[in-house]
Amino acid sequence: MHHAVFPGGGRFRPRLTLGVALALGDDAPELTDAAAVAIELLHCASLVHDDLPCFDDADMRRGQPSVHKAFNEPLAVLTGDGLILLAFQNLAEAASGLPQRLGPLVSLVADAVGVPNGIVAGQAWESEPEVEINDYQRAKTAALFAASTMAGAVAAGGVAADWRILGERLGEAYQVADDLRDVASDPETLGKPVGQDAALGRPNAVAQFGVKGAIGRLKGLIDEATGSIPECAGASALRALIRKESEGFLPQALASYAA
Amino acid sequence: MHHAVFPGGGRFRPRLTLGVALALGDDAPELTDAAAVAIELLHCASLVHDDLPCFDDADMRRGQPSVHKAFNEPLAVLTGDGLILLAFQNLAEAASGLPQRLGPLVSLVADAVGVPNGIVAGQAWESEPEVEINDYQRAKTAALFAASTMAGAVAAGGVAADWRILGERLGEAYQVADDLRDVASDPETLGKPVGQDAALGRPNAVAQFGVKGAIGRLKGLIDEATGSIPECAGASALRALIRKESEGFLPQALASYAA
Repeated sequence: MHHAVFPGGGRFRPRLTLGVALALGDDAPELTDAAAVAIELLHCASLVHDDLPCFDDADMRRGQPSVHKAFNEPLAVLTGDGLILLAFQNLAEAASGLPQRLGPLVSLVADAVGVPNGIVAGQAWESEPEVEINDYQRAKTAALFAASTMAGAVAAGGVAADWRILGERLGEAYQVADDLRDVASDPETLGKPVGQDAALGRPNAVAQFGVKGAIGRLKGLIDEATGSIPECAGASALRALIRKESEGFLPQALASYAA
Repeated sequence: MHHAVFPGGGRFRPRLTLGVALALGDDAPELTDAAAVAIELLHCASLVHDDLPCFDDADMRRGQPSVHKAFNEPLAVLTGDGLILLAFQNLAEAASGLPQRLGPLVSLVADAVGVPNGIVAGQAWESEPEVEINDYQRAKTAALFAASTMAGAVAAGGVAADWRILGERLGEAYQVADDLRDVASDPETLGKPVGQDAALGRPNAVAQFGVKGAIGRLKGLIDEATGSIPECAGASALRALIRKESEGFLPQALASYAA
């Protein structure tokens, strides 16, 4: 489980949770931390299972051997299961002083990963012969990003629904960027084999819109995201943070296209 | 996910949750139901992953093809993940009117399945060269039985700790009975291949104590279980229920030994 969580990737999702909570005053920082951790643990769990031989059969992840390569396949299945459960163990413990915030948090994060609208559903759609790209990406990526912003709001006593669009647009942007990385990066930069989506025939924004089209869509999504941030004490600081974070979405090799 | 949950097996664990809640007056039956369902969904999830080719490679479960045989391996991994998440989605929704009971319930069921003391930990110990049989069985089986009784108590506003021994002893008894079934049943009765534990070199109470010794241990554990039930309005009804349920633990073929 440690191997699956460290070293981390971009940690975009949990930083988003912290950023939204901070924008709202963050009156329960321990609960905010647990929510951010839950989001990241669930993300890591999905990567461990996604790397398994029966899915992507990926030898490498984040520049080191994937869990089933470093250990074995049974332990990789159990690692994913254990990380899913740890997200909730952690969240329940941190919410003991604010029990009324726990239910919405558990629902938010579990719905974003589970069935019918979360990562597990999105993964299952990869088994289907035909998938609508927006539905697929919403489940596979945008759902957990939306949960990241909404969980930050709920952890700080805010209203989840006000923060859904921010997370969804950033999730869609991240997925488009991931598709761009998939075609444009070199393997060393990315830490995993390139061209996986094309090789596996999965829906891909670059295949659908071309490189320039996909970059345009990426920029539009980030504008929609920052434009959706509700008025609150920390709104402008959060807008600046998100502009900065989203620069990291796009690989170096494509920065000139985006300029 | 439906295939993994229906038709059910003994449904011992969720009935235990309902039985304990009822003994305490069951003032929140919807929450009790959700707790019982969570326990059963987590149990089913563990079976789906346990049947995978990298674990037991079981073709059959409960008299029908295992999930990876009926569908495929990726969908079996996702089915287990989806069932784990559904347990918490369901629990969080049912607890909206009684938020102060949700945290303890989430902790109880997640700890019983997760790391370091639950099913996932127990499964992982199967990869180790040497395992102490009691620790192993506590994690693999007794933990979820203990969570079943404690969750019934918490759902009904009771004290979890008072109900731990009941669940633990029943879980140990169930595991001993399972070991007996593993050596004594015919495949048709059990619905899965016999002799799996011996074939896979896993710790087994029959190998350790012999058939008669294991049956003696089973009866002793059930006595300890019923003896631990705290005084409450429904205590004697619950004692009778557990005597009756535990008769179902032992396969027909061994009933004469136990008499």
